[in-house]
Amino acid sequence: MAEAVRLGSAAQGTTAPNPNVGCVIVGADGAIIARGATAPGGRPHAEAIALAEAGERARGATLVTTLEPCNHRSQRGPACTDLILESGIARVIAALEDPDPRTHGEGLARLRAAGVAVELGTGAEESRESMAGWLLRQKLGRPRITLKLALSIDGKIALPSGESKWITGEDARAHVHLERAHHDMILVGRGTLQADSPRLDVRLPGLEERSPRRALLSRGEAVAGWEMLRAPEDVFRLHDVNDLLVEGGSATATAFLAADLVDRILLYRAPIIIGEGRQSVGYIGLDAIGDAHGRWVARDGRSLGIDRLEVYERVREG
Amino acid sequence: MAEAVRLGSAAQGTTAPNPNVGCVIVGADGAIIARGATAPGGRPHAEAIALAEAGERARGATLVTTLEPCNHRSQRGPACTDLILESGIARVIAALEDPDPRTHGEGLARLRAAGVAVELGTGAEESRESMAGWLLRQKLGRPRITLKLALSIDGKIALPSGESKWITGEDARAHVHLERAHHDMILVGRGTLQADSPRLDVRLPGLEERSPRRALLSRGEAVAGWEMLRAPEDVFRLHDVNDLLVEGGSATATAFLAADLVDRILLYRAPIIIGEGRQSVGYIGLDAIGDAHGRWVARDGRSLGIDRLEVYERVREG
Repeated sequence: MAEAVRLGSAAQGTTAPNPNVGCVIVGADGAIIARGATAPGGRPHAEAIALAEAGERARGATLVTTLEPCNHRSQRGPACTDLILESGIARVIAALEDPDPRTHGEGLARLRAAGVAVELGTGAEESRESMAGWLLRQKLGRPRITLKLALSIDGKIALPSGESKWITGEDARAHVHLERAHHDMILVGRGTLQADSPRLDVRLPGLEERSPRRALLSRGEAVAGWEMLRAPEDVFRLHDVNDLLVEGGSATATAFLAADLVDRILLYRAPIIIGEGRQSVGYIGLDAIGDAHGRWVARDGRSLGIDRLEVYERVREG
Repeated sequence: MAEAVRLGSAAQGTTAPNPNVGCVIVGADGAIIARGATAPGGRPHAEAIALAEAGERARGATLVTTLEPCNHRSQRGPACTDLILESGIARVIAALEDPDPRTHGEGLARLRAAGVAVELGTGAEESRESMAGWLLRQKLGRPRITLKLALSIDGKIALPSGESKWITGEDARAHVHLERAHHDMILVGRGTLQADSPRLDVRLPGLEERSPRRALLSRGEAVAGWEMLRAPEDVFRLHDVNDLLVEGGSATATAFLAADLVDRILLYRAPIIIGEGRQSVGYIGLDAIGDAHGRWVARDGRSLGIDRLEVYERVREG
């Protein structure tokens, strides 16, 4: 399952509107026969790719997948449950049930009815993490939204002039590029577009093809090459985005936080003091410190060269 | 030496103008016979206390100390080298030479000349850290200055109204009290005094007696119970303070940073977003991001409950 999760995670940001599933087929001796991850654009599915690679060797083997195989036929391909039944797979281990109402347990039920041994739940937590964006979209009808902040020790994002190159160092900026590669879309505000003309591409060897779609938060005119969002709430119209990365600046961060449309914060902090400068976030409707507590939890932290990354996640009930 | 360093570290903030030295006496079997740390106010010295505790058992034993024993007689007590020679100690292990020009190697030289085996340098780094304030004062003629900042994720120290209770949680605040106990003096600005009437005492079981002297950075009238500094540069007049803790607010932090009179930053960060609020640091004379780099280095980091502490130190050449 660890290898299936790894394959699925690596495909994050490329498979929308479909989930980024990972799948391996394991022979009787425990060795991995074949691997698959959801292809860019969402088809073929991970299981179809792995089964095609395994061919006849799938007979009697175990298929391990991060998500329940689909049970709905589509114009874009057959249902994975059909492919599994045809392949002769003897056992299926799935981490999560598919929340998609067209499958939702029916895929596994159909496999069981046909005599395939089925296990559910192994690696559930890691699998949930690997497709967090898609899962959140199933539940809330919008992408998972990650806000990137690059701050000085004293919490500034730029000098008063707007100069912000560079607060963080190369290692931190390379990490941002890695995060970009795992998002379907990146969004900035018009201020950032005009000040920095950001390319928002992925400048990492081997991942150049993974540069996501670019979006602009603005009530003004459209800009060629950029998709337009007129307000943060427009994310509910993004039906083909699992993971959205908001890269700033301050007005954009403030708008998304004030709308409570941030699920995750990447806080990159450089060991510098800027002093007078631009603040990272403006008024978000908070009138008492007490009300600010209990909304965020630190999930991860690490050093990136001389900088530090902290990852926070929004605590949402239910 | 580890135990001597521990004893010396625990006395930090209580021994000014003298160094916070730790000392143990070790018998022929390697067991610790006696312990000592510089007493509150600076006398007796650590060696004198340990030798008094050891008594006759010091004969032939090894004295381990974080700093070279003093060689200057004072009205407040005899020189430690005299006490060591009288005690019959056979061997002295010292981590650091005393930079005080009245001793500066002469203590160890005198012991050697009298036939005592002398080693210098064991545990030098840990010992330097344990008395960093006193050492910096010997070199720069002022206390080591630590700036405490308690910030939200987005770098704010309060709401626009000034409300700042509480940004950080109990564990982080307990850590601040522990830091206070290891400083000789705490300083705030008049804004913080008027808004919060801070007690700046140490509220930790067993350490209540360790509440440091209180100072106010203000050009205005004196306030009873508070020592007055009219400008950050007045720290050069504090000849009896090894470690000074600057607790804010923003104007005070800005004044010390602009004067380049901060050696260490304690950055406590809570997992909350404040949005519009008070900034931690104002104009410090920085006009280009590039000039901000290379001045600070992260030395330590840890979780304190749901909060995070990062410790930065000023990089000074030579």
